[in-house]
Amino acid sequence: MHELQYLETVRGALREDLGRGGDLTSELAVPATAVASARLVARQAGCIAGLDVAAATFREIDPSVVVDAQVSDGAVVSAGTLLAMVDGPARSLLTAERTALNFLGHMSGIATTTRFIVDAVQGTGVAVAETRKTTPGLRALEKHAVRMGGGANHRFGLDDAVMIKDNHIAAAGGVRQAVAAVRAGIGHTVKIEVEVDSLAQLEELVEDPVDIVLLDNMTTDELRQAVGIVAGRMVTEASGGITPESARSIAATGVDVISIGWITHSAPNLDVALDF
Amino acid sequence: MHELQYLETVRGALREDLGRGGDLTSELAVPATAVASARLVARQAGCIAGLDVAAATFREIDPSVVVDAQVSDGAVVSAGTLLAMVDGPARSLLTAERTALNFLGHMSGIATTTRFIVDAVQGTGVAVAETRKTTPGLRALEKHAVRMGGGANHRFGLDDAVMIKDNHIAAAGGVRQAVAAVRAGIGHTVKIEVEVDSLAQLEELVEDPVDIVLLDNMTTDELRQAVGIVAGRMVTEASGGITPESARSIAATGVDVISIGWITHSAPNLDVALDF
Amino acid sequence: MHELQYLETVRGALREDLGRGGDLTSELAVPATAVASARLVARQAGCIAGLDVAAATFREIDPSVVVDAQVSDGAVVSAGTLLAMVDGPARSLLTAERTALNFLGHMSGIATTTRFIVDAVQGTGVAVAETRKTTPGLRALEKHAVRMGGGANHRFGLDDAVMIKDNHIAAAGGVRQAVAAVRAGIGHTVKIEVEVDSLAQLEELVEDPVDIVLLDNMTTDELRQAVGIVAGRMVTEASGGITPESARSIAATGVDVISIGWITHSAPNLDVALDF
Amino acid sequence: MHELQYLETVRGALREDLGRGGDLTSELAVPATAVASARLVARQAGCIAGLDVAAATFREIDPSVVVDAQVSDGAVVSAGTLLAMVDGPARSLLTAERTALNFLGHMSGIATTTRFIVDAVQGTGVAVAETRKTTPGLRALEKHAVRMGGGANHRFGLDDAVMIKDNHIAAAGGVRQAVAAVRAGIGHTVKIEVEVDSLAQLEELVEDPVDIVLLDNMTTDELRQAVGIVAGRMVTEASGGITPESARSIAATGVDVISIGWITHSAPNLDVALDF
Amino acid sequence: MHELQYLETVRGALREDLGRGGDLTSELAVPATAVASARLVARQAGCIAGLDVAAATFREIDPSVVVDAQVSDGAVVSAGTLLAMVDGPARSLLTAERTALNFLGHMSGIATTTRFIVDAVQGTGVAVAETRKTTPGLRALEKHAVRMGGGANHRFGLDDAVMIKDNHIAAAGGVRQAVAAVRAGIGHTVKIEVEVDSLAQLEELVEDPVDIVLLDNMTTDELRQAVGIVAGRMVTEASGGITPESARSIAATGVDVISIGWITHSAPNLDVALDF
Amino acid sequence: MHELQYLETVRGALREDLGRGGDLTSELAVPATAVASARLVARQAGCIAGLDVAAATFREIDPSVVVDAQVSDGAVVSAGTLLAMVDGPARSLLTAERTALNFLGHMSGIATTTRFIVDAVQGTGVAVAETRKTTPGLRALEKHAVRMGGGANHRFGLDDAVMIKDNHIAAAGGVRQAVAAVRAGIGHTVKIEVEVDSLAQLEELVEDPVDIVLLDNMTTDELRQAVGIVAGRMVTEASGGITPESARSIAATGVDVISIGWITHSAPNLDVALDF
Repeated sequence: MHELQYLETVRGALREDLGRGGDLTSELAVPATAVASARLVARQAGCIAGLDVAAATFREIDPSVVVDAQVSDGAVVSAGTLLAMVDGPARSLLTAERTALNFLGHMSGIATTTRFIVDAVQGTGVAVAETRKTTPGLRALEKHAVRMGGGANHRFGLDDAVMIKDNHIAAAGGVRQAVAAVRAGIGHTVKIEVEVDSLAQLEELVEDPVDIVLLDNMTTDELRQAVGIVAGRMVTEASGGITPESARSIAATGVDVISIGWITHSAPNLDVALDF
Repeated sequence: MHELQYLETVRGALREDLGRGGDLTSELAVPATAVASARLVARQAGCIAGLDVAAATFREIDPSVVVDAQVSDGAVVSAGTLLAMVDGPARSLLTAERTALNFLGHMSGIATTTRFIVDAVQGTGVAVAETRKTTPGLRALEKHAVRMGGGANHRFGLDDAVMIKDNHIAAAGGVRQAVAAVRAGIGHTVKIEVEVDSLAQLEELVEDPVDIVLLDNMTTDELRQAVGIVAGRMVTEASGGITPESARSIAATGVDVISIGWITHSAPNLDVALDF
Repeated sequence: MHELQYLETVRGALREDLGRGGDLTSELAVPATAVASARLVARQAGCIAGLDVAAATFREIDPSVVVDAQVSDGAVVSAGTLLAMVDGPARSLLTAERTALNFLGHMSGIATTTRFIVDAVQGTGVAVAETRKTTPGLRALEKHAVRMGGGANHRFGLDDAVMIKDNHIAAAGGVRQAVAAVRAGIGHTVKIEVEVDSLAQLEELVEDPVDIVLLDNMTTDELRQAVGIVAGRMVTEASGGITPESARSIAATGVDVISIGWITHSAPNLDVALDF
Repeated sequence: MHELQYLETVRGALREDLGRGGDLTSELAVPATAVASARLVARQAGCIAGLDVAAATFREIDPSVVVDAQVSDGAVVSAGTLLAMVDGPARSLLTAERTALNFLGHMSGIATTTRFIVDAVQGTGVAVAETRKTTPGLRALEKHAVRMGGGANHRFGLDDAVMIKDNHIAAAGGVRQAVAAVRAGIGHTVKIEVEVDSLAQLEELVEDPVDIVLLDNMTTDELRQAVGIVAGRMVTEASGGITPESARSIAATGVDVISIGWITHSAPNLDVALDF
Repeated sequence: MHELQYLETVRGALREDLGRGGDLTSELAVPATAVASARLVARQAGCIAGLDVAAATFREIDPSVVVDAQVSDGAVVSAGTLLAMVDGPARSLLTAERTALNFLGHMSGIATTTRFIVDAVQGTGVAVAETRKTTPGLRALEKHAVRMGGGANHRFGLDDAVMIKDNHIAAAGGVRQAVAAVRAGIGHTVKIEVEVDSLAQLEELVEDPVDIVLLDNMTTDELRQAVGIVAGRMVTEASGGITPESARSIAATGVDVISIGWITHSAPNLDVALDF
Repeated sequence: MHELQYLETVRGALREDLGRGGDLTSELAVPATAVASARLVARQAGCIAGLDVAAATFREIDPSVVVDAQVSDGAVVSAGTLLAMVDGPARSLLTAERTALNFLGHMSGIATTTRFIVDAVQGTGVAVAETRKTTPGLRALEKHAVRMGGGANHRFGLDDAVMIKDNHIAAAGGVRQAVAAVRAGIGHTVKIEVEVDSLAQLEELVEDPVDIVLLDNMTTDELRQAVGIVAGRMVTEASGGITPESARSIAATGVDVISIGWITHSAPNLDVALDF
């Protein structure tokens, strides 16, 4: 991830916290000359993501702060692990602390949740992907966190892959019409995915296969049959109602990808802290 | 909440989804003239927040879309409840759908979690507040969601109230020095809160009370004693490690406020959907 | 193309022209009450793109201006064709005129150049695509113009498709290593394209085919052989040094796509004017 | 040109190319530690403009990239000339390459076209100027390119000089009324230019001369007469339908300035490349 | 002045006041359904500027607010004059009130101060201009206010006229060198002004006159001599230490323009209020 | 004040001055290699504020400029005092000069005016505060200047303290209703202030006191009585029509705070200059 992709987000988050008056407490109570050395630690076990973003947060407040990372994004750590040393003016550390932790805790929460599912399906060869159910404004950061957790990214938005859903099909007058309309207008670098709810729909689609088929809300039985029907002619993606408990059995059906909204929209924060 | 406080956030979220190419699928598969009537529904029981934001999302994509809300922010609804009718060009509804739902699901998740705690402490007179542990860029929206869930807002950032923590105290050379330094520089409209970890610290503080005392990570026994020591001279706020299970017993200690980070940073999304 | 994708660009262009002082001439010389009816016409024959953008330019200056389009984007028109009637306060028309024409002339120039090539290769089944050699800040508008000229879009940027070029291959230590590294990290919705300069490279690539092969700077003889070697296992794209004269013979080699930088970066403006 | 005038444009162009996912190919295929040394070269003979902008593009991606310019903006170079050495991390060079070249090729194309006309009219003493027919968002950069090609800039927008055209005259009720209205409201630092289409109009204007007269679409005969009529009382500017072929004969009529829209809106790109 | 020139400034000012939490008082204390009719009045006599900006401020908060202006910008009013009726939801009026008044009071203060000087020099034919000593971010609005007060604008910034000062002359090696360097590079639409401190410098300059001469900090005697020396060959502008008292005697020296920094940077606010 | 709170304002002000063409004069008349050493001086006696902002302005134009401050914000200086040495490329100093001085002169003007009042009330123990009558876009900078002049800040906007005025009371149906409605919805970190116009209103309010009472437009007699009525149960703030002459007698009434709009909206600029 390049800094240009998140620096404005970091500045926005800092301005959101500084408001119009700045850090009243630190400016008044902490001498300008005080320096501090703090330990950025994981309070819980988990998978880390967002260390670069947290470091950029400190640097945006004060370029003289030195963040010395001890682990890299993607590291799986135990509770108490030192993630980075943060040294610099005490005021700067105190001012940036909460915003840096908010990024790191949020992204690591997503990476940890992703990692949990990826580990659960280990050996099945299935890829774990998030969806477009991301927090507004943070999609690039959350997709990065998914990758750090061992997941693979689904499309980034409405324009980098086609996803034909039931409402598109209804509006177009049928799946063939929808696919034909898309093919007529789309460039050669864009993949087409079609959502099907039933094996009957799948049978129709497979006669003129697209790149990816989304098997929506199917049972493991149906998924297994679907994989047989597709027979390698399309990438198969299972989605809908997948839980941590069901993930492995769904992965075992032979689908290529499982996509899960809650690894981005409902992952709990990972507890990280800055100890002075 | 005024639209000026979130409209740029809504536009940013839509541009994040549209990317450079726009909604490829809807533009190609759905006729420009197709219209649709969709039902915005809660798939889970919960407390709703963000209806205005979701409506603004549809309107930003297409001012001709009509969103007819059936409930208001703050409503506690059962699964299946119709939240709003959304009528307009099918393309516009499909293009805005995911972004609108991302706002509504995220904010309603926070409202629902808040409501759960507020209900749990009902009758104790305690106020339930969030912290500054919010998602970067979304603080105003998340604080609104907390209010809709029956909570009360803590400070909005570093500049609208003073919060003197252990590191400030250490850097200032003691709690009295820290409080004195703050008082010398602060305007008359700003409240001062001091964090204490022990009853000994509290005894020192109460001799020269500030507006609010944060009782950090205390047992219910300690909290009860603390309330006695303060004897109404400061607002008392309990924080640290509060769980849904412990909330009521903490509230019962007589503190005025309990503040909880996870009602913003770890609240799961509320499942909302747009049914065509 | 949704207005959210270009409205900020339109506003920026208007502010660039208004500067700090605004339209001195019109404000001083033209009475505020004067109204005008103007004809937006093509002075040259060509293919039109950007009518919505031009209309938005007038509306941004004055919502009371009415732009009544007589043709749609994609229309092939002869010199003198009326494109739209523009009615409203004379000052508003004069202030917006140059910016609106700059958008329309630039985009129609690209559409016209694209159309010329598309017509030249008619019947060969080849798709004509632009590249990333677009004018900074205008990529979405220019790609739209290519579509309006009958072309098909190549990738929108560095993140919606993989393009492995010679320097990537060199840095990765070989084409197999590069492809393997990409496959290990990429999501299932992203296509992979590899650039080859020689038939030998192509022979190596085709053993483990990717989605698209870019045949760079090959002769028509080489292209014909390349198409034979690929034998439908990858989409074939010819690029490099294609001229209006050579386009048809290259298309006749059987490649699927020809991509041409100059249809965006060197297309001359189409002469459009606003006649009062 | 000061960096503050184009840095946001450079960042915007990079973000346009990076999208939400960044440079997928380079991040996956190129080791983070790989360094490269590349030669920025002109593939065609031409006049260079935009080297500072291209260098800033590399630096925005990575401050550690060193761009060592071998020529300066305004240099007239032959095909194959080394323009700059670019050294740094291979990933950074690959990520910034296309955007940097897009700026440099576009600006050098304009400088080259300008230079061609300036050379064609050498010795006549005429100044070659562009118009407001510039690419939306890039006016400052394009005007800089014109200067580098030996041209002189016309006004930057609607607010730094007055230009009274036929529609203003019609709306004001005559040229005298229009000029009078402008003079009554304009500050003493602003020049006034009036467009005339005929010698009769010029005769009327010259009785009460303004600063500059635009002689629109006149023949060389008419221009020669116009110069005689003006007799030094106004700066004379010829415009309209000037071609590379006609430029010298128009310049020879004795006008002070010729202004040409196509040197900005239709100049073909100069072929520049980055060779690793 | 076109709305595009100030709308972002208005929105920025409103966001500055709303902060992250919005108008707490009005949202809590005022029923959403309450409507109000308020009178925008001048508490002091003065010259009004900024009514459109104030109206836009109310509309940005709530498009349903109706502002019915009773006077126009430039009007000279007595204390107590009704400037506009403002009708709409009470909350919206209360939320926008202070920001609208801040714009109107600031701009009217400048217009009133300008008007005072313009009236003082009435009959001398001198133009009263402001300088670049404007409030950061508000130059366009302040220059508009000067025009509304009967003044004429000096240049808008560093790029719409040349101003050669003593430091430029020193760096260039003399006034002739500085003027020659500027003439060689400047377009035909830009005026050149040179600052002189003494009649000796003026004598040198007038041999090769530029467009405007700035007579800096001269006595009325010197100014009178300077006007004689120039003898109409340049526009003459007096500046430096002009007070309300001295303005008329300076104007009487025959200079064309007097420019005064304090009409923008030190004009006291005009007292305006919104009476419910 | 943290740089993140004003850097965008500085950049905006510089772009406002540079326009589209940049500093024409310095770029043409001053050799790129010329260096200069300049003295930033106070031409008038006063209290300084904005040195960091002025220094940032020079650095934004050219990071190689060195600003060596000789005094700090808050310093009270006599006419002629050297405030800072500014060394660097001559062009950069000339380009940034006016914008840097505009910030410094504006902010120092406010600090000086504040200081004057603070000195006038010395010994009374009263705090001097500004209001929300600030220049649009500059509130944070102006509030900083007030602090530097020895004043104390009032609330920063509509969201960091509640201020119940007559119109709120009228709309709510009485002061008790208004206060009750606010208390029901406000967090525990927000203070409540109520404006009263008469001692009768004060008597009503004091029965159920809020945090602060604004005593609006009262005579010194009334203020003295009001202080007696309040008897320490609320902070007392006098406002309305306070002049430099009346400030001390008002302060002597025993109120805690006096708040004055004109120290921000009508403070004259402090004359500061850059001498080369």
